[in-house]
Amino acid sequence: MASILVVNGPNLDRLGQREPSHYGHSTLAEIESRLRQLAEDLGHQLDSFQSNAEHALIERIHRAADAQIDGLILNPAAFTHSSIALRDAVLASALPMVEVHLSNPFARESFRQVSYFSDIAIGSISGLGALGYECALRALDQRFRSS
Amino acid sequence: MASILVVNGPNLDRLGQREPSHYGHSTLAEIESRLRQLAEDLGHQLDSFQSNAEHALIERIHRAADAQIDGLILNPAAFTHSSIALRDAVLASALPMVEVHLSNPFARESFRQVSYFSDIAIGSISGLGALGYECALRALDQRFRSS
Amino acid sequence: MASILVVNGPNLDRLGQREPSHYGHSTLAEIESRLRQLAEDLGHQLDSFQSNAEHALIERIHRAADAQIDGLILNPAAFTHSSIALRDAVLASALPMVEVHLSNPFARESFRQVSYFSDIAIGSISGLGALGYECALRALDQRFRSS
Amino acid sequence: MASILVVNGPNLDRLGQREPSHYGHSTLAEIESRLRQLAEDLGHQLDSFQSNAEHALIERIHRAADAQIDGLILNPAAFTHSSIALRDAVLASALPMVEVHLSNPFARESFRQVSYFSDIAIGSISGLGALGYECALRALDQRFRSS
Amino acid sequence: MASILVVNGPNLDRLGQREPSHYGHSTLAEIESRLRQLAEDLGHQLDSFQSNAEHALIERIHRAADAQIDGLILNPAAFTHSSIALRDAVLASALPMVEVHLSNPFARESFRQVSYFSDIAIGSISGLGALGYECALRALDQRFRSS
Amino acid sequence: MASILVVNGPNLDRLGQREPSHYGHSTLAEIESRLRQLAEDLGHQLDSFQSNAEHALIERIHRAADAQIDGLILNPAAFTHSSIALRDAVLASALPMVEVHLSNPFARESFRQVSYFSDIAIGSISGLGALGYECALRALDQRFRSS
Amino acid sequence: MASILVVNGPNLDRLGQREPSHYGHSTLAEIESRLRQLAEDLGHQLDSFQSNAEHALIERIHRAADAQIDGLILNPAAFTHSSIALRDAVLASALPMVEVHLSNPFARESFRQVSYFSDIAIGSISGLGALGYECALRALDQRFRSS
Amino acid sequence: MASILVVNGPNLDRLGQREPSHYGHSTLAEIESRLRQLAEDLGHQLDSFQSNAEHALIERIHRAADAQIDGLILNPAAFTHSSIALRDAVLASALPMVEVHLSNPFARESFRQVSYFSDIAIGSISGLGALGYECALRALDQRFRSS
Amino acid sequence: MASILVVNGPNLDRLGQREPSHYGHSTLAEIESRLRQLAEDLGHQLDSFQSNAEHALIERIHRAADAQIDGLILNPAAFTHSSIALRDAVLASALPMVEVHLSNPFARESFRQVSYFSDIAIGSISGLGALGYECALRALDQRFRSS
Amino acid sequence: MASILVVNGPNLDRLGQREPSHYGHSTLAEIESRLRQLAEDLGHQLDSFQSNAEHALIERIHRAADAQIDGLILNPAAFTHSSIALRDAVLASALPMVEVHLSNPFARESFRQVSYFSDIAIGSISGLGALGYECALRALDQRFRSS
Amino acid sequence: MASILVVNGPNLDRLGQREPSHYGHSTLAEIESRLRQLAEDLGHQLDSFQSNAEHALIERIHRAADAQIDGLILNPAAFTHSSIALRDAVLASALPMVEVHLSNPFARESFRQVSYFSDIAIGSISGLGALGYECALRALDQRFRSS
Amino acid sequence: MASILVVNGPNLDRLGQREPSHYGHSTLAEIESRLRQLAEDLGHQLDSFQSNAEHALIERIHRAADAQIDGLILNPAAFTHSSIALRDAVLASALPMVEVHLSNPFARESFRQVSYFSDIAIGSISGLGALGYECALRALDQRFRSS
Repeated sequence: MASILVVNGPNLDRLGQREPSHYGHSTLAEIESRLRQLAEDLGHQLDSFQSNAEHALIERIHRAADAQIDGLILNPAAFTHSSIALRDAVLASALPMVEVHLSNPFARESFRQVSYFSDIAIGSISGLGALGYECALRALDQRFRSS
Repeated sequence: MASILVVNGPNLDRLGQREPSHYGHSTLAEIESRLRQLAEDLGHQLDSFQSNAEHALIERIHRAADAQIDGLILNPAAFTHSSIALRDAVLASALPMVEVHLSNPFARESFRQVSYFSDIAIGSISGLGALGYECALRALDQRFRSS
Repeated sequence: MASILVVNGPNLDRLGQREPSHYGHSTLAEIESRLRQLAEDLGHQLDSFQSNAEHALIERIHRAADAQIDGLILNPAAFTHSSIALRDAVLASALPMVEVHLSNPFARESFRQVSYFSDIAIGSISGLGALGYECALRALDQRFRSS
Repeated sequence: MASILVVNGPNLDRLGQREPSHYGHSTLAEIESRLRQLAEDLGHQLDSFQSNAEHALIERIHRAADAQIDGLILNPAAFTHSSIALRDAVLASALPMVEVHLSNPFARESFRQVSYFSDIAIGSISGLGALGYECALRALDQRFRSS
Repeated sequence: MASILVVNGPNLDRLGQREPSHYGHSTLAEIESRLRQLAEDLGHQLDSFQSNAEHALIERIHRAADAQIDGLILNPAAFTHSSIALRDAVLASALPMVEVHLSNPFARESFRQVSYFSDIAIGSISGLGALGYECALRALDQRFRSS
Repeated sequence: MASILVVNGPNLDRLGQREPSHYGHSTLAEIESRLRQLAEDLGHQLDSFQSNAEHALIERIHRAADAQIDGLILNPAAFTHSSIALRDAVLASALPMVEVHLSNPFARESFRQVSYFSDIAIGSISGLGALGYECALRALDQRFRSS
Repeated sequence: MASILVVNGPNLDRLGQREPSHYGHSTLAEIESRLRQLAEDLGHQLDSFQSNAEHALIERIHRAADAQIDGLILNPAAFTHSSIALRDAVLASALPMVEVHLSNPFARESFRQVSYFSDIAIGSISGLGALGYECALRALDQRFRSS
Repeated sequence: MASILVVNGPNLDRLGQREPSHYGHSTLAEIESRLRQLAEDLGHQLDSFQSNAEHALIERIHRAADAQIDGLILNPAAFTHSSIALRDAVLASALPMVEVHLSNPFARESFRQVSYFSDIAIGSISGLGALGYECALRALDQRFRSS
Repeated sequence: MASILVVNGPNLDRLGQREPSHYGHSTLAEIESRLRQLAEDLGHQLDSFQSNAEHALIERIHRAADAQIDGLILNPAAFTHSSIALRDAVLASALPMVEVHLSNPFARESFRQVSYFSDIAIGSISGLGALGYECALRALDQRFRSS
Repeated sequence: MASILVVNGPNLDRLGQREPSHYGHSTLAEIESRLRQLAEDLGHQLDSFQSNAEHALIERIHRAADAQIDGLILNPAAFTHSSIALRDAVLASALPMVEVHLSNPFARESFRQVSYFSDIAIGSISGLGALGYECALRALDQRFRSS
Repeated sequence: MASILVVNGPNLDRLGQREPSHYGHSTLAEIESRLRQLAEDLGHQLDSFQSNAEHALIERIHRAADAQIDGLILNPAAFTHSSIALRDAVLASALPMVEVHLSNPFARESFRQVSYFSDIAIGSISGLGALGYECALRALDQRFRSS
Repeated sequence: MASILVVNGPNLDRLGQREPSHYGHSTLAEIESRLRQLAEDLGHQLDSFQSNAEHALIERIHRAADAQIDGLILNPAAFTHSSIALRDAVLASALPMVEVHLSNPFARESFRQVSYFSDIAIGSISGLGALGYECALRALDQRFRSS
């Protein structure tokens, strides 16, 4: 059994209200609840955390590293393209991480095509909506089983 | 009668002390007070908010969207050039927004010449000092009247 | 009492006919007339000039400098992005200048995001339609009063 | 029941032999076989095609469009970064497509960080190994169910 | 009497089906047939060739050079922006060539604005649909008459 | 019957004298005369205008828009690469326009490879000499017939 | 006697745990304690502050300016490369500042080679580990003595 | 005896008034008069022309070519950095030309460091004030004598 | 005794006919024959392969890897600058490879100055004509002897 | 006891005379003498060398490597931004090196912001004047003690 | 009476032999001799120095500064585009300097279009051959007389 | 019989000691001796020269041109990427030159991928170690025989 942390960045608390053409109609609570269920089915424990504050995300990842969490699913949202501090927190945690984006940033503004997280992730998933989190969870699950 | 929110970004709490050659001698409280008076004269209600914390600005705009505010006057200060998360909050709010800068960023360092807000604003005003806020307010007023 | 010159660049004689989604429905004559009225209310005299010819704009600014005009409101239109000669005429005149754009160039083609005038202007206003001229006039008025 | 085509680009016939640190130990036949099984479990039919020849890939997609296939899973391999012709074939087919990469191109040479497919894909998955195909299949499945 | 070869690149066999807003409703066979008729009217012989395979296009141009064809009309399609090998085949053939594009690549994605053929062509025609081929033919005809 | 305006930019009054290796031996008057004849044969009326002055070109296009001309053939010459004001005049006229260049700018200096007109033209023709105008005329003719 | 503030940015609370090959084995508390001792030996008073929150760092510098601190030693960590707001806070404080980095950012990712602080610092020190803070302190000490 | 034309671009009619720190205190008439005297001493005839209008400069050079002038001294002023049309006029004239700048553009804004004239000039002189014209005249004189 | 494969890319079947100023007068058959002789003299066996088709080149290298060939001499011709798929085939083969170009690409168009093969080659030789292959063969020979 | 070599690049023999606002008032002899004293206090031996000639600096470093010196303090001065040969000499010596700059190159011309030495140095110090050498010496001292 | 130093950079000792189409037929000795004569006629004393060694040029300028020379004429030749150390020597000397190039670098390779000397020179002269030195001398003469 | 000069640039006197993974184990004397033997076998005379000083290399090439040497083998080492003066010396000599690099610069730092010599060389050889010189010698030999 592994323990996994799902971390969601700024504005994702607005899911369901905000620009549904980009981000879909589910709320974050609904997504997290379905994901927790899948984790249980796979025999893992899953916590989730969202904040609009960069420092809160950083410190949640610090605590996860201290608590010897096994893996990270991270949707950095707008911080994808700007937060080297959050990148450093992931690097410092040394945790295996899968990057998830609900929408496809490559079909949007050009400044959304740079990520400070893709090169330090195990893998990246974008454009699959809430299914992206599920895929990320399965990827971590497979990794834990094979190691 | 419309309700308008004025949002000011980092370091603007230092107005009056900080680099007066760039930013003028009025304090933010003085600017906000004169602006509130003008709003009342035009028959509107105006609230204002300043923070040095990106997440506080984001969440204030989230609340404004929930409270069905009619328009936004935003001086993102240094976040103009770096905060995609604040841009996303404005986009998510779907509120009409006028961008204001006290000084003229085009006459300063080259990295101050990129804005994550100009292309999603109704209009942009820079270099007019406190008068810029007044112009922004008149622009929103005119828009509300004509719509 | 100050004397102010409003200078409008190429294609602005087509206002009211040309691409109303970008430039609005007022004709230039209407805008100038309302602006002249406001100038009188503030105790100033206002002249205006439009040309599609770069040299005519340059020479009008030369004459304004000779006539010891007090300030300039300039909408360089397409010359914003290409005319260093017009920039040089403004620099040579040593007149305080406010830059005005009816539409928001930052929301259009990328080549409209470079201005040869923003860094030598007192301030810049874009996207506010005809109100932008009024704001520019108030900015000059305030400057003359405080100096 | 939907019919889905999996298309794999150049050198992927070498899977299992070629650079296992980047691409894993399964052969393409094994991956396709497991994927076909999952498609059947979900009630779909899945065909797969691999070629080292750009024109063969293009023409396979043309035929898929004629045969009114429902969706495409595409791993363009090295053509990701160079084949506008393959992109045009996908655009011409008007088929929903999910892009898959076995390894994480963002952690490799800089020329592997440009994709001619990400902006026209429903979604992109990279770095999850063979699981990436499974996620892509689930994403198409979910899309067919919800439409 | 001159002999002329018309060479069409990848995906052009899909004309009439593929993205009609960019490429029009005629099939390639219809375009070629009308073009052959015009060639006969002008007293020339015209062959045409289409392939999705770069090597087939290259080798067709090699054979044309061996057969002492007099001129080339080339629509490289997506290879316009990527195939230096096709460019080399044209250079090696030393044949006068006119470049044709059905649609206007300058109004599409930025990577479609680079051509490996324009600087070695007699002339380039884009955006005129099937008429572009006819103009290219007339340009070669005029060149053969004047030389 | 349609009425068409041909507009030629700076230095084209020198045709026949100026750099014949780039621009051919015909004078502009000869080209215009042959073009007018072809227009008559096709049942249209054709006017032509040349100027070295940007403002004269702009104002000629303004007048054409007022006179409800049906289409424009434009050789912007050196203004191709520098005049946003002329582009704006074409946009403001909302007239269908075909861009013509006598020589092939892609085989010349790199600064001649940027055009402010290609992306707003129906089509572009370069390197075909005077025949380019004829093709442009046929393209407009075909468009008028099919609409 | 001068009063000096040492400000440490995000993730530096993890020193000793985080990537020791880049940052060494001492904890921040150990570094600060040795530094405070050296300050006392030199006859100065030294305070230190660390936060992962940009706004907390900004406001600590605001307070330092109000309290008429004499100098600043700043390790902006990941904010080095992204925080214009923190730069603005340092500029607003008008305090002499020495920039310190524990590791050598020039031997790491290319995005770590841009600093928003180097050009406004008295000097910069990188790669010397904890000794860098000591050097910065000696540099301020020398400056205070010579002024 | 040779005949030489001196051509001065926009704003140079303001010499003596305009920004004396960049351009010196002599008026253009004084410079031209001294230059005409030197030409006579060397046995040549010198005409001069200034205009703020690009087309007037272009047409003056056209007339000079028709009149079989022997050489050109050109100070394109702000057109140095923007006028391809003026460059084309010089190219079309096939006249030997020396480029002169009163001030040193390399010590000013970066956009003044690109010239459309330097690569087609015999030579370029900048920063020597009125003496630059004299040197240009001597250079042409020497060239006429040696040829 | 080692077995060596020589692979030649597109258009090299035209050697002797095609642009002799760049590529020399020998045919590919002559070059290969002389090279085979030298290989025999050195005690090795040498096979050679040319194709204009990228996939044929890729698959020939796959087969060479399966056949446990000892080394590769590769002239990718135009694919040098465009084929990441061919690069991937070489990487997948894990064979020592020497890159050869008949002409000097650095003296030609700028797009010929990027190679997808130089950084994965043992060494690169260009501009020496057919002698380049001989040098490559000697380099492999020396490597086999010393290992 | 360790032996350390201090190497100073071009124009540093002018210290004390040259641009004191950038480089301070001490001569190089004074700096070296104080540095030698400090080395002795720490129990080390220190030699110093200055040259304006790149080859002399290179060969001094070669000799230092032969003499099995323990560490290098290097102020490459203007060679910082241009001498790959000096970089190669340092790499070839395999000596631990600390880079020192008297002034802060980041506050000067943009071409001074590239260093060929920072990424191969243990650490870099700039802007601290002569104190920078002392810090570099302490850094080497600490390294020798801890190894 | 002023004393002036003429400094010539690498390869200029080959004048008269080397690429006469770029550099003319006079030897450096002939140019220097004529220049010395002109200096005497103007009442000045002129020394000249040439070296292929950067350090020799640097040290000659150091000595000139010590000897209180009045002005510098500098042809840095290839060092124009690469020697920051020579630039620093000129800056350190604080001498007024005129930059001279025999040929026109703007008509040659692109890397010859960057100068490390133009922005710190009084003026720059290129393409006038030996006359360029004479103009430089007259420019210094005029400067000395007017100051 | 031809006379050939081999010129080796900075740090190559360290061969055998310096970074053997990049440059091999032979000393320069050994390489030169073997090369001289091969030259004699081919009936030529070969001299060699190494210097760490750019001016010494330049002047050696000047003397070679005066002595009517027949060809040059040049390994510019670090000067490959920085010395335009050495390039100019080669150009001035008008000697046929082959460029040699012991290691493969394309597999190293990006600044080693620009050469000031490749485009003026007959050919370039890199990564073959000492064999590269031998190939260069054979290339010159073949050239002398065929001319």
